[in-house]
Amino acid sequence: MKIMQIQTHVYSEKKKNLQQLEQILENAAVEKPDLVTVGEMFVCPYETRLFPVYAEEERGETWKFLSGLAKKHGIWLQAGSIPEKDADGRVYNTAYVFDREGREAARHRKMHLFDIAIQGGQQYKESETLSAGDSFTVFDTEFGRIGLMICFDIRFVELARILVQKGAQIILVPAAFNMTTGPAHWTLTFRSRALDNQCFMVGTSDARNESAGYVAYGHSILTSPWGEVLGELDEKAGILITEIDPKECGRIREQLPILSARRLDCYRLEETER
Amino acid sequence: MKIMQIQTHVYSEKKKNLQQLEQILENAAVEKPDLVTVGEMFVCPYETRLFPVYAEEERGETWKFLSGLAKKHGIWLQAGSIPEKDADGRVYNTAYVFDREGREAARHRKMHLFDIAIQGGQQYKESETLSAGDSFTVFDTEFGRIGLMICFDIRFVELARILVQKGAQIILVPAAFNMTTGPAHWTLTFRSRALDNQCFMVGTSDARNESAGYVAYGHSILTSPWGEVLGELDEKAGILITEIDPKECGRIREQLPILSARRLDCYRLEETER
Repeated sequence: MKIMQIQTHVYSEKKKNLQQLEQILENAAVEKPDLVTVGEMFVCPYETRLFPVYAEEERGETWKFLSGLAKKHGIWLQAGSIPEKDADGRVYNTAYVFDREGREAARHRKMHLFDIAIQGGQQYKESETLSAGDSFTVFDTEFGRIGLMICFDIRFVELARILVQKGAQIILVPAAFNMTTGPAHWTLTFRSRALDNQCFMVGTSDARNESAGYVAYGHSILTSPWGEVLGELDEKAGILITEIDPKECGRIREQLPILSARRLDCYRLEETER
Repeated sequence: MKIMQIQTHVYSEKKKNLQQLEQILENAAVEKPDLVTVGEMFVCPYETRLFPVYAEEERGETWKFLSGLAKKHGIWLQAGSIPEKDADGRVYNTAYVFDREGREAARHRKMHLFDIAIQGGQQYKESETLSAGDSFTVFDTEFGRIGLMICFDIRFVELARILVQKGAQIILVPAAFNMTTGPAHWTLTFRSRALDNQCFMVGTSDARNESAGYVAYGHSILTSPWGEVLGELDEKAGILITEIDPKECGRIREQLPILSARRLDCYRLEETER
């Protein structure tokens, strides 16, 4: 399974970001990737006030454009995340997945909004303009089941575990850590979620732009079920191509039995009944 | 709060291990530690066939000796782990904590037994002679609430999370990773449990002995609620002294709200009713 992670520079013009992705896919088509990923909010500067301005309803213009790219190249496209507006005007940070025919295979609305206030570091309050999703997202491919979450979602051990309990062997994470949390926690978190859940973790960031209001860390990464870094970019725009064997999860889970050795007679992690 | 982690060479004679600990505490008394920890099975070579041979009932000779050391020095003593035999003859990997008066403040029986078979690496089957505990262990000190687990227990994100849900700000882990899992996962796991749960993790290993049947990795470690390594030994016998401020947990939890931002309306991790 060939995974291509595209770390793009985010322009303030939505259209320019889409054209850029189109061009990159065109140029990289020769690589014949099975699955392509992009970063969080890759169509829109990462500023809370802009999310409602850039937001579109599901099946809107941007959605159609991305669906068309997936179909054109016959790829699974995890098109990062984009601001989504629902019929009631609520705005979400939403990650779509399109299959090789361009059909929507999954939609994840960021479940944990990013509201932090670090002394002498990053301040940010996503909940100023965004609403949170409340669903767990997995989808099926010819390579097995894949889970989906967005950026701050990865901080919560419960979410990755539930996706794996639902059968995920790979978890895709469009993300944009910042210059406080990136150097401190990015690699550590991707390595540990992969190790603890014995799955592949695929984190795709936007490129770093020092003049942006929110400076992304970059460093798109792919980690293995043994907790290793299989590939990592630096902070600049770029492409990371990694071939993985999803069967590796099963082999690791057998040798180091973490999932099967959980004491479900002592504790249980479950979706809350609503 | 001054924590002293003692990484000892494990001799095959139980008595020699106890006398060694007594001597180290005597020599280090001038440091005036508040809490002292030791490694997993520090009284007994880490071989499954020996656990039943070395096992004693609670309040047995070794227990009394350790209680006496805590009282003599007026310290909290997390006396690593030792093999414990219950009235029915079942044997456990058990971690005791004694308070400054020498009273038993907590007892944790290893909940996840270490049964692994890594291709070309470590093979081990603790369940050949040990039974598993089924209780979550926290205890209260003048420094706040402290959780307790043993070695392989740390692999399970559920356990650390439940201890923190019970109020733990520090988690003590007598442990003995091996030469396969140690280099690959020891530091990563201690850093990530601390970061994800915004607590201090204190991992105390036995020293490495290349001629032992099971070769411990060593590297006793203490990690912070920000996921940093505050102190780490190498593989040799030694002492690690670290001063920590448990209030740091609260400060980190406020700035980077992971625990309070959990979506308990979407998922819930709970003890199983029995």
